Amino acid sequence: MGELADHGDGPALSEALASGARVTLTWQDGRQAHFPLAWLRDHCACAECRHPLTRERLYLPLETPTEAPGPRVVEGNLELAWADGHVSRFDAGWLHQRRPGTPREDVVPVRQPWGNDFQPSRIPHADFVGEVAGERAWLTALLRDGLVLLEDGPLADEEVSRLAERIGPLRPTNFGARFDVRSKPNPNNAAYTAIGLALHSDLPNWRQPPDIQLLYCLENDAEGGESIFADGFAAAEALRRSSPEAFRLLSETPIDFRFQDEDHDLVWQAPVIALDAADNVIEVRLNNWIRDSLRLPLEAIDAWYAAYRTFWQRAHEPQHQLEFALAPGEMVAFDNRRVLHGRNAFDPNSGRRHLQGTYLDLDMCESRLRVLARRG
Amino acid sequence: MGELADHGDGPALSEALASGARVTLTWQDGRQAHFPLAWLRDHCACAECRHPLTRERLYLPLETPTEAPGPRVVEGNLELAWADGHVSRFDAGWLHQRRPGTPREDVVPVRQPWGNDFQPSRIPHADFVGEVAGERAWLTALLRDGLVLLEDGPLADEEVSRLAERIGPLRPTNFGARFDVRSKPNPNNAAYTAIGLALHSDLPNWRQPPDIQLLYCLENDAEGGESIFADGFAAAEALRRSSPEAFRLLSETPIDFRFQDEDHDLVWQAPVIALDAADNVIEVRLNNWIRDSLRLPLEAIDAWYAAYRTFWQRAHEPQHQLEFALAPGEMVAFDNRRVLHGRNAFDPNSGRRHLQGTYLDLDMCESRLRVLARRG
Repeated sequence: MGELADHGDGPALSEALASGARVTLTWQDGRQAHFPLAWLRDHCACAECRHPLTRERLYLPLETPTEAPGPRVVEGNLELAWADGHVSRFDAGWLHQRRPGTPREDVVPVRQPWGNDFQPSRIPHADFVGEVAGERAWLTALLRDGLVLLEDGPLADEEVSRLAERIGPLRPTNFGARFDVRSKPNPNNAAYTAIGLALHSDLPNWRQPPDIQLLYCLENDAEGGESIFADGFAAAEALRRSSPEAFRLLSETPIDFRFQDEDHDLVWQAPVIALDAADNVIEVRLNNWIRDSLRLPLEAIDAWYAAYRTFWQRAHEPQHQLEFALAPGEMVAFDNRRVLHGRNAFDPNSGRRHLQGTYLDLDMCESRLRVLARRG
Repeated sequence: MGELADHGDGPALSEALASGARVTLTWQDGRQAHFPLAWLRDHCACAECRHPLTRERLYLPLETPTEAPGPRVVEGNLELAWADGHVSRFDAGWLHQRRPGTPREDVVPVRQPWGNDFQPSRIPHADFVGEVAGERAWLTALLRDGLVLLEDGPLADEEVSRLAERIGPLRPTNFGARFDVRSKPNPNNAAYTAIGLALHSDLPNWRQPPDIQLLYCLENDAEGGESIFADGFAAAEALRRSSPEAFRLLSETPIDFRFQDEDHDLVWQAPVIALDAADNVIEVRLNNWIRDSLRLPLEAIDAWYAAYRTFWQRAHEPQHQLEFALAPGEMVAFDNRRVLHGRNAFDPNSGRRHLQGTYLDLDMCESRLRVLARRG
């Protein structure tokens, strides 16, 4: 019926009755639902209405069917004969899953905030590449917690790209499709300093910052340089509870983020905390380095700084933070639009530190999890 | 002062006065503005507060300066000596551009709806690749109108990728980074049929559909197959005027879009018309093929179909539509989140039709325009 995922062993139909512009169905589990005629006509899955190969809809709902189509239960499924002679057949289980008002089932987990004792899931590299269950566990943890670790991987150049490409194409940015976070014992360039990096999100100056960041550790012999992460959504929710006015200001006030070099000038205006229509936190943009000139009305400026300061401190509180040293052969993956990341300062004369990184689209991570779930 | 773009020949300062937690500046053009101390401290551009190479902010505004910093006008610019001994210097013109409440100037044009007599700009390929003004004109038209044509280009495989990569990296999707729209005289596959394609947007089943689509024509000998475009924003605004209730329903009701094949299951829930916080139309998602099962409460279903039908008809009205045949060596670029595209049916036995396509991020298009504008 136009779905690659099956519709379970849904119950058969026991009755189908026309009543005006609706058909009332009763299943053998006793459930009953009303389906508008327009809905039924739109969802016809015959080869004329839905492409047999692409499974895409060919029918265009430009007319409202008004005449009752003589519903019949045939072998437990629904058959409708429309006034123009067209016949539609619907699987009873498929309809059962789509009773009006029933939400779509999905294997993509709901996001869970980090508790005080949150510890990230660790998936062995061999499980990730060797079995569906390993990759599926990795994706589930990533989508649920916003952060997951891979361990015991090879010390191989570009391994991060090979792992990422199992999920989807690398998402390129102005820094390329793949980047090296590398420091040298005697840094000669500002990009390779050993200073600590405060918590931040990458590329908030894009209207669509990269979703998922992968950082694969190839070398980490230097003293210090521990990775730091914080659940930005949990920090935002803590701010909403403790300082509702600061939360309101940061979620309602777009500010400029901007990165400029010889070849780029990427600027976007967005609030630090983004909410959806139901006021759920859906994105945090925190990056003090590329926060651009603050362009607000005079009377709003001091209050915005006070709110920013409060959120900054909230995000850096120990209960929102996770700190660990990545070992060579370990990879951390995290949701860049939810989880803030940083690192402690390290001693560049004590050893080398080399991470390789890339980005993935969240859409492709969710898609991959759904495809793996088909395989059980 | 941390900006690659210059700040013009702004006027010099004539006076700087401390007044409580603000500094009041007067320029020689007579303008006056108040700057909070927190703002001034945050925007200090010295090498300690802003990285001299990356131009990124190093200063973290965790404390509010309260003591008046003894403002002085030095050679027409501002100098502040903070209580802790730190000294900040600000260019008068840079401050003039950033008077609180002054919007950021940008070369990125405001979007303009297509009028009834809209004709897209046409830029010769030689101008695009040969001079800054040509590429700049192309980008300006694309960002302003949502659609622009390139003409007289070579009939060279992958020319679309070469042109795109001047702007930014190709944006890959589940269909790859580059795709072929090719039809054969005797199609053996549904993807290569010659049927007409109704107006649609690509990949509305992604949370972040691709922004800019480029379609480069290599062959177009078949009869028919004219390209069709409509300004989705203009159609949405027409709907808002003529059928406010339909507009409200389509902008407030998220529906499922879904694409499934053996390797993908990409699903996203979004309204057909997306609005920003100020109720401006910012995205149109129209794609009848991959509109998934409509999962709404029973009482909302008939009204949603009626609204969809009305919008569909509005988008297909002649005054919102543009129709032309792409000639070999021509490329159309359009904003996939604003402009709907389709094509007329054609006769596959009358000749060949081959387009090559790719996607670009809008962020990179805007960035490129700003960088070109630096070169005059």
